Parts: sequence; structure tokens; C-alpha cells
Amino acid sequence: MRNILIIGSGKSSSYLIKYLLNKSHDENLHITVGDINIINANKLIGKHENANAIKLDVFDKNSRESAIKNADLVISMLPARFHIEVAKDCITCGKNMVTASYVNDEMQALDKQAKNKGLVFMNEIGVDPGIDHMSAMQVIDRIRDKGGEIILFESFTGGLVAPESDTNLWNYKFTWNPRNVVVAGQGGPAKFLQENAYKYIPYNRLFRRTEFLNIEGYGNFEAYANRDSLKYQSVYGLNNIKTLYRGTIRRVGFSRAWNLFVALGMTDDSYSIEDSENMSYRDFVNSFLPYSSSDSVELKFRHTLKIDQDDIIWDKLLELDLFSRTKRVELQNATPAEILQKILMDSWSLDESDKDMIVMYHKFGYELNGEKHQIDATMVTLGEDQTYTAMAKTVGLPVAMAALAILNGKIITPGVQIPINKEVYNPILKELEGYGITFKETEVPYFGYNPINV
Amino acid sequence: MRNILIIGSGKSSSYLIKYLLNKSHDENLHITVGDINIINANKLIGKHENANAIKLDVFDKNSRESAIKNADLVISMLPARFHIEVAKDCITCGKNMVTASYVNDEMQALDKQAKNKGLVFMNEIGVDPGIDHMSAMQVIDRIRDKGGEIILFESFTGGLVAPESDTNLWNYKFTWNPRNVVVAGQGGPAKFLQENAYKYIPYNRLFRRTEFLNIEGYGNFEAYANRDSLKYQSVYGLNNIKTLYRGTIRRVGFSRAWNLFVALGMTDDSYSIEDSENMSYRDFVNSFLPYSSSDSVELKFRHTLKIDQDDIIWDKLLELDLFSRTKRVELQNATPAEILQKILMDSWSLDESDKDMIVMYHKFGYELNGEKHQIDATMVTLGEDQTYTAMAKTVGLPVAMAALAILNGKIITPGVQIPINKEVYNPILKELEGYGITFKETEVPYFGYNPINV
Repeated sequence: MRNILIIGSGKSSSYLIKYLLNKSHDENLHITVGDINIINANKLIGKHENANAIKLDVFDKNSRESAIKNADLVISMLPARFHIEVAKDCITCGKNMVTASYVNDEMQALDKQAKNKGLVFMNEIGVDPGIDHMSAMQVIDRIRDKGGEIILFESFTGGLVAPESDTNLWNYKFTWNPRNVVVAGQGGPAKFLQENAYKYIPYNRLFRRTEFLNIEGYGNFEAYANRDSLKYQSVYGLNNIKTLYRGTIRRVGFSRAWNLFVALGMTDDSYSIEDSENMSYRDFVNSFLPYSSSDSVELKFRHTLKIDQDDIIWDKLLELDLFSRTKRVELQNATPAEILQKILMDSWSLDESDKDMIVMYHKFGYELNGEKHQIDATMVTLGEDQTYTAMAKTVGLPVAMAALAILNGKIITPGVQIPINKEVYNPILKELEGYGITFKETEVPYFGYNPINV
Repeated sequence: MRNILIIGSGKSSSYLIKYLLNKSHDENLHITVGDINIINANKLIGKHENANAIKLDVFDKNSRESAIKNADLVISMLPARFHIEVAKDCITCGKNMVTASYVNDEMQALDKQAKNKGLVFMNEIGVDPGIDHMSAMQVIDRIRDKGGEIILFESFTGGLVAPESDTNLWNYKFTWNPRNVVVAGQGGPAKFLQENAYKYIPYNRLFRRTEFLNIEGYGNFEAYANRDSLKYQSVYGLNNIKTLYRGTIRRVGFSRAWNLFVALGMTDDSYSIEDSENMSYRDFVNSFLPYSSSDSVELKFRHTLKIDQDDIIWDKLLELDLFSRTKRVELQNATPAEILQKILMDSWSLDESDKDMIVMYHKFGYELNGEKHQIDATMVTLGEDQTYTAMAKTVGLPVAMAALAILNGKIITPGVQIPINKEVYNPILKELEGYGITFKETEVPYFGYNPINV
């Protein structure tokens, strides 16, 4: 038996475990799921004979090391900041490792040691990052192999609620970490390239400069820019790219309404609100508005943000009960972002029967034989229920497939890797198709940003 | 002779040196002015027999220590971040010290050592902080001595251009460190109290929530909130205060126009613009606007920021030559804030004949015998020329007066101090009147934020 240690049995581990257990007989696998709390781990492995759950505190060196020593390969599904201790042990014990997280400087620093020991440290192999890398590089390499040159690459991903569960005015529910949604876009401007010009969007404009997208059968979407699109130029080798933009997908209208929170300062996570515990939602809103002895919070809000009386954006706020005098914050020393998150979770939490949806949209512009072309590629994946979500599926399956490929000697390039090479992405994308994760490609006229006739 | 060492001979040292030299015979003073570059120091001391200039590199321990050892009192006019090394030497050598800067944690940490050695470390005794503390505490203490209770304190200060030199559409020129003006308000929300309610303004709203002020003979002003007004509650002992607000004064209309820069992200100092060196001013503006192959930068700017064609705000931008195709940034790896500063310095630098102006406005609301009262106090000081500026006068004179009072045993309370006690502020405010720095007090009906008839 080959032992795979999965550390972390949170929301994104369900499909990962299911996939590996399904393969465990044919592939001679034993799966150990380690977590500080093994309730969910036990639920996910059931009574499967090729699996066990162990209590594993990632900050306890002994329990961590002994678990890793017994494994042939380690998958870390922990939050990204916790990978590094696991990674260092994998170096020490000589184990291959897989994560779905971005490579940070600490992880990158292990590259040489991993190479010296012949270890594969595969990262960024979930959905975003992950499937986005693989599906983009497959098209990019195909175009290059034909002799084409990529001049435009735009890529958009969103975790949304499935159409059948889309029941609120925001067309949004939390399908993943709510905190990341509330603070998204902070910490620096969005940077990207449009027709060879570097463009910068500050946080306060981010949700007002959206792009629109349409996916057949799923309707219209919008996207706001991710923080740093420029780094993909070197990662994907897009030396002569003119337009490079990555964004996050929402339903149309979300961003305009979200910007109200940004404008008032309600997404700030850098300081605590005085006496937050005893505030009503209305008090919270009022703390961002000028004092008045006569005017209502509602009118001050409309006036400050110039909201017309018949603007539908207002109904979105009412739906959240934002002006409630009775609902209380009940969080001590909370930041504005924490309070906003609580208010949103009242309205945007998934119901038991709700399903999620992952949407991805790539645009590839290229020049071949002096002519410009464009390929659009879209992928939509729906969740089954609240355990087997689209998020868990698109994150977990590529992780599982990569882990097995490494065990089987199909992925052998050592070092700190991301899935941008054919040996990695071709078999995995092929296998993902069998699970319904497919891209629909369309040839469209190259539009870029320079239409011939304005 | 008593030796006073002044470290730093920059813009704010002219009046300080002049005052001390004028007193040097009667008071038996010898003034040593130390600076890394002694050209300006020599200009300021002229051929006065009681003064000399020495080359002093504040980072060179030996030259710093030997200068401090020879002094009876040290005045540091360096940028605030450089005081601490001087302060530590003053502890070691047992010397009193005066600065015009805010007390930071490092300085505060020296309090016990200063007390143990019986040393006075007087800080925040320039104009803001300085004259604001003294003039406010004088009125606050007077009200308290009568048995009144302060319920409202609002305080506004601005460094502006004198009316006779006010020649541009912004009614503003750089009379002090331009960089501080460009990044003002960043790094956290403005926090204050209005009628017992805590209020928070994020940076992106700061310049849209101004207060208006009128000073007889000088017309209308506006003020935007300073970052943290709340700390003045404990500093001034305003336990039952309902409204507490500090702000920065500009001429009316400045903030609305400034907010255009904030909205586009042009004041960001946290990242470098690609290829900034070779950009035109127009390219710089365009990097914050969406790409278009047909629309002009001007129209994109107007559209993005919703500027009507007949809005005077537009003329303010044109006056800066913001859309110039020929003027170049010429700064390598510059941040947006650095580039904006350069553009503004083209237009807002003082001419040789320009004069500056310091404006201060306090509002004191209080309750006495069950009735509410209000006192407004205003101060306006004009500069004489570009050496003897209003800024140098209002910063330097209180520093000089405090230094002399310490030498003469009039200020004796040891430790890290700010000028909020009567022994300090009464004689200094009295003496400042002789130099034309006077407050005009007016009793006005208490308005607060709760007018009886709305």
C-alpha cells in the first residue's frame, strides 16, 4: 500500500478524499486524514477500509512529523499560511507534497532543497489557482505550437451560487471563506495591461470598473480586476502580450452595490469600532455618516452616496436589514469588515439545499500569419450539495489527480512546481472532463481593445 | 554664557534663531547651530558674535555627542523620526531638550529616565502641535475654573498662502513639506466624536466631508478631519466631551478638487508606476483610466469622475497642466504620490515674493449653571517673506520661548512633556502676543449639532 496523508478535512477536502478512496483498491492506496478535529474527517471517510482519521495539530512538531514519516506523499489542505511547517518536514523526511495554494516566498525558498532530494512539491493545483493555469496553458501552448503569438490574455473566475439557488437581489451567497470576500481587493491597486499600457485601479474604484461577460445558458456576469495580473506575464511566458487582465466574476450589479460599503469604509479591517458589541446594525451604518439631530440614517446614506429614490440598489441594502434598529452586532472590538461580514452572513449563508457554482472565462487573443484571432473558453461547474460543492470538486479533484500522478511517477520534475507544463496539465484536464469539468471553446473575431470601426 | 544647541537649520529655524540671538546679550546665551550642511545655518546667524555654526551629522555618534556635551539645552528641529538619537544622548549627558514634534512611543519611553535625572523634555511646542495645545488649554482651563464643563471641542489649523499671494484656482501653495500634503489622511480612517457618537471617515470620503469656517477679514475656509481626534480626549482631560473634532484648514473648494486625485489613486505612495521616468503627465493620468482607442484622456477623466462640462473643478486641473503631452515625469520608479507631488510643485511652489499664512480656529462648547455656551477663538498669522514665514514664526517662537524658560528655571516639571500646563502656556501665549500671534475670542450662541429648531 502507498500511504497518502491529507492534512485538513475542511470544505475543500470532500471530493479529494472521495476520489482517492474510489481509486484505493486499484491503486493500492491507504488514505490518512489528519485534522485537529476529526469529526468531519470521519464523516468524509465513512467506514472505508483503506482510510483512517488521525488527530493532527499542525503546530505540534511531534504529531506532525510522525504522521508525515509514515506517508509516501503529503497533501496539505490547510489555509495557505500553515503549509510551510508541513513543507519543511517533507523536505526533512523526503516526501512529495501537493497543495492548492499560491507559492509564497517561503515555499519558493524550498525549491533548491526539494530539487536536491528529487522531490515534487506541486502547488497551485486547485481551481484558482489550478484549473485556470492548466486550461490557459493548454490553449496558449497549442497556439504557440501552431506558430501563433499571444497578444491578449484575460481570465476570470468566480465562486457563485448556482442559478437554482440564486434567490437574493445580490445574486450572491457565500460559497467560500466570507472574510476573503469582504476584504477582497484591499492591500494595493489592481495592476494590469491594456494594449501595452499599464493600468492601475485603486481600491475605491475597483468595483466601479468592471468588465462584462456572457456565458451561453448562464447569462450575464461582471468581473472586477484582481490585484496583480502582471505576474502572469513571466509565469506563462507571455513576453509580447499587449493585454493581460485577471478578474473575479460576480453577477451583474453586485459590484456597484458592493462599492457602497467600500465608499463608506465598511470593509476596513485595520481598526476596531468603539463599543461594537452593543451596536445595532443601524448604529454601525450611522458611524460612517455625519451626525444629524433630525435626518434619518436612510436619508443621510442616500444623500452621501447619491442614491436616487428609485434605484434598485436600495432594495439590496434593505434586503440585508442594514438599517435594523433591533439586530445587534454582538462582536467585541470588531473591525468594520468583521461587522459587515456578520451582517452579510445573516443573508448570504447557503441554505441546506443550496448549491454553488464555479465559473471560469478565458479570452486568448493571438496573431498567426499576420492575422488576429481570438478564442474564448468557458467552464461552469455546479455543486451537488453542501458537502460535494463545485468548489470542493474543482479544488479537490486536480489535487487528487496530481497526487496520484506523482505517486505513479507520471509527474517527476522535482522542485517547487505549478501546473503549467504539458506533462501535468494534459492528463489532468483530460481526466477532469470525465467528471464534467469541461471547457467550451469558441472562435470569435478578435476584438481586443482596438476595433477597426469605432 | 549658557549654551543652546539647535540641531537643524531648515525652514522652521529662522525665527527661532533670530529670537534667541536677540536675547543673547541680556540672557547670556551662546547659540550653536548644527546641521549636516551649514550654508543655511551661516545665513541665519549672520556675523552674530554669540553664535556659531557647526557641521553635525546626527547619525555620527561622536560629532553628535560632543556637540550635546557642550550644550546646556538642546533644541532638535530635525524631522521627527531623527529626534530619538538626540534624546538618548540628552539623557546620557543630562541635558534638557525641546522639540516641536509629536511625542512618539520611543520618546515617551524616555519619560522615566528624564524624570530620574530631573530633565525637562518639552515636545509638541511648535504651532500644530504647540500653539493649538496652549491656546486650547488656556480657554479650557478658564472655563473649568469657572465651574463649566466642556461638551464640545473642535480645532482646526491650516498652513496656507497669504491672501495677497493667493493667485491660483486652488487657493493653495506649498508652504511646508509638499509630501505631507500629498499623502495627508492616509493610513487609517479619521476618527472623531459628534454628539456622543463615534464617527469614522475612510480616506476615500475624507475630502468630501468637510466643515466650513469663516474668519472675519479673511473669508471662508473649509476643513477636513485629521486622522485621530479621539486621543485629545485624554490629553486634554475632556472626560464628558460630546463632540471632539480636529481638522486641517483649506480654502473652500480645495478638497472637492483634491478628491479627484484620491478617487483615481494618484496619491498612493505604496507602489511604483512602471516606466514612470518616460511618462508624460498625460500618460500618468491615463494609467488610472480605462483603455480606449478613440476617447480622449480628458473625456475618460470627466466620465469616470462625473465632471460636468461647466464645472469649475475642471479649470483647476487644466491650471496644473495635468493633461500635458510634453511635460515629463522624469522620476525613476516613482510612486503615484511622488509623481503627483512633482506635477503640483510646478504650480504650487511659492514665488520669491510670496507670503504664507497660518490659520487656527477653535470652538469650545460648554455647560455652566445649566446653560450652554460657546466660545470661538481664531488666530491668523502672516509671513514676512520666504525666510521669515508664518510657519517658521509660529513653530520657532514657542520653541525658543520654552527653551529660554527651561534655562531660566521657569519650566521645571521634569519628564517628557507637552505644553498643556499653565506654568508653560500662560507666559508663552502672553509673550507671543507681543509678536502679533493673538487669538480673537468671540462668544457665540451654542449651536453644537443639536439646534432646537430644525
